[in-house]
Amino acid sequence: MKTIAGGICAPRYFLASGIRCGIKENASKRDLALVFSERPCSSAAVFTTNRVQAASVIVSREHSRSEKIRALVANSGNANACTGQAGLEAARRITELTAEKLGIAVEETAVASTGVIGVPLPINRIEAGIANLAAILAPNGGDTALEAIMTTDIRKKSTAIELKLLAGHGTPIRIGAMAKGSGMIHPNMATMICVITTDAAITAAMLDRALRRAVDRSFNRMTVDGDMSTNDMALVMANGAAENPLVDREGPAWEAFASALEYVCTGLAKAMARDGEGATRLITVTVKGAACEEDAAILARSVAGSSLVKAACFGADANWGRVICALGYAGVPFKPEETSVEFTSAAGSTLVCKNGEGLLFSEERAKQILLEEEIEIKVIAGSGSGQAVSWGCDLTYDYVKINGDYRS
Amino acid sequence: MKTIAGGICAPRYFLASGIRCGIKENASKRDLALVFSERPCSSAAVFTTNRVQAASVIVSREHSRSEKIRALVANSGNANACTGQAGLEAARRITELTAEKLGIAVEETAVASTGVIGVPLPINRIEAGIANLAAILAPNGGDTALEAIMTTDIRKKSTAIELKLLAGHGTPIRIGAMAKGSGMIHPNMATMICVITTDAAITAAMLDRALRRAVDRSFNRMTVDGDMSTNDMALVMANGAAENPLVDREGPAWEAFASALEYVCTGLAKAMARDGEGATRLITVTVKGAACEEDAAILARSVAGSSLVKAACFGADANWGRVICALGYAGVPFKPEETSVEFTSAAGSTLVCKNGEGLLFSEERAKQILLEEEIEIKVIAGSGSGQAVSWGCDLTYDYVKINGDYRS
Repeated sequence: MKTIAGGICAPRYFLASGIRCGIKENASKRDLALVFSERPCSSAAVFTTNRVQAASVIVSREHSRSEKIRALVANSGNANACTGQAGLEAARRITELTAEKLGIAVEETAVASTGVIGVPLPINRIEAGIANLAAILAPNGGDTALEAIMTTDIRKKSTAIELKLLAGHGTPIRIGAMAKGSGMIHPNMATMICVITTDAAITAAMLDRALRRAVDRSFNRMTVDGDMSTNDMALVMANGAAENPLVDREGPAWEAFASALEYVCTGLAKAMARDGEGATRLITVTVKGAACEEDAAILARSVAGSSLVKAACFGADANWGRVICALGYAGVPFKPEETSVEFTSAAGSTLVCKNGEGLLFSEERAKQILLEEEIEIKVIAGSGSGQAVSWGCDLTYDYVKINGDYRS
Repeated sequence: MKTIAGGICAPRYFLASGIRCGIKENASKRDLALVFSERPCSSAAVFTTNRVQAASVIVSREHSRSEKIRALVANSGNANACTGQAGLEAARRITELTAEKLGIAVEETAVASTGVIGVPLPINRIEAGIANLAAILAPNGGDTALEAIMTTDIRKKSTAIELKLLAGHGTPIRIGAMAKGSGMIHPNMATMICVITTDAAITAAMLDRALRRAVDRSFNRMTVDGDMSTNDMALVMANGAAENPLVDREGPAWEAFASALEYVCTGLAKAMARDGEGATRLITVTVKGAACEEDAAILARSVAGSSLVKAACFGADANWGRVICALGYAGVPFKPEETSVEFTSAAGSTLVCKNGEGLLFSEERAKQILLEEEIEIKVIAGSGSGQAVSWGCDLTYDYVKINGDYRS
């Protein structure tokens, strides 16, 4: 497996474009994107579990039942959520117009929105925008498409890899992906749009299984602020252009594909946590020794999501009591009396708690470790075989600043 | 019912004292308190549900099975949590010494601790302190006791009321209370110590029932930062000095007592939310129209606990989409399409969302409303009969500052 350039357009026959169409108040920023496969696709998607769902989520969920999504229109600056019947009609109109411009069926299109909730979508501008987007679709359009889905994101989150599913067998397949999300991010899913493209030949059923496992181990294990959005969506489209033997069952080829997809999603999840609103540090929480993987994941997320742990990390304060405390209210069993906590980074590591009790450690050294941009909190929570990783970020003045007046 | 002076010493035959004994790094601050009833008590207590429990919680839970607690020693500056066998022995030693000094049984004493986790308790200083505390117990010592349990609290949280349980029947009874807690506060329970005294004659069983209902509707409905402490405890001691007819069953007298207790606890819960670390605003979230009270409480807490809602309130930004979003991930059913949201304060009120859709409203007017120190978010979530209130506070720069380096 190797990393390649090109993002979502790295897989063959995928095109993309991104433009400004006047949805964002800042008119200099792109806000409308299109991703399109020139060939038919099998597809799979997962959506937010929030009981309030954006119009785009409702429509895309309907269309994704076709398992043939090959085009996605995404806008930033407006979530098209809590916009009633008009919002739903706007989302349908977007998919209809996109299908018409691209000469595909409407159930082959999806729509995603991110931004402010409860403000009517400026559908007229988007209608004009879709015609422009279709006209400028290009194999090097991935970067502008990515810019057009960003809101408070600072860093661009995009990746592409290439690998052979079976050694010595045909052309390698490629997977490309882009994602946005930096606030309102919490399992399950995030204020997140993730678009994954691949030229692998794989059935929709096998694609769905791979996506769900990958999402569960990546996006569902990251947290920025505990808020779960009305708009989250992860979509994968596979057009088969690599002409590998069709992956239509579990086995070595599927496992290779699913692992690669998980690798891609994990990378984006870490990038999202690292780019959390106002964040200065990526916090990786590793829990081992839990009863099972699910328990370990819940424990790890509880630590990564604790406001007090996050604030302590911002202050580079080795306040491990808050780690123990967050394990304690996670809601799953563990062994406090067997629990150890270690802080690790490029600057070294220090064990601060063993068998549930504090150890003497150098505060100065711990501070040096925690001042790094990427820190890891390693927890052993018993002697079980369950382990999992969760990603989060620190809680900073800038998080408060960004969210104290997001709309103005 | 009327408010009276005296706090925990307002009920007859309760004495208190508070001193500096050198647990807190800031040696000018009081850190050890004693509350004592000169007469035997019936008692009830509730404790944190965190799986990691402080030594003081373990010991007090044991002793409270006696239903006869009449003395409480509380320290601030050290949580005596994650301190192993030595911590447990220290907690036992505190209760033994207190019982000895006061001439009561050890199972009549309880101990509470609040502060940093994982640091050995300086038991020698506390031993010397207990002798001093017992020597200066006084009916006007409530205020010094209160000071001695405060950590990052800014405001003193104390109250006392007087009422007759049955009209025209004997002397009025009194309830006094003090509480600490401003960070690491979330249902169920908080980094909270709450001590309630009363001179009512009431059985332990009836006291327990009243306490649980009051705590469920007060402390369990407030949230500061979503973190639940290892040390929470609410204790009520009733010495019967009012000589009212013994409350030994449900009925009008019990209902009057339970309502009064709920009033006291609700007042302290609001005061705690208002005094949340770094908070500039008290946020009251009222949910009506849910299927039942429990669902309403979960919805209200989800809104009050959302980092994004809290940050928006800090910025006086009427970002009601975040309110809807927090309702959506609360995990209980409601009717998004029937939901309305209104912001209210002393400066007026403005309906911003009706039937799940945004309304046109004046942002300027909304800002004026949200700039008040006490704001209310009123939610109607359907047409059910369930309603509940939750209290929280805004998320501010100072929360981050306070928690970025609490220990130094």
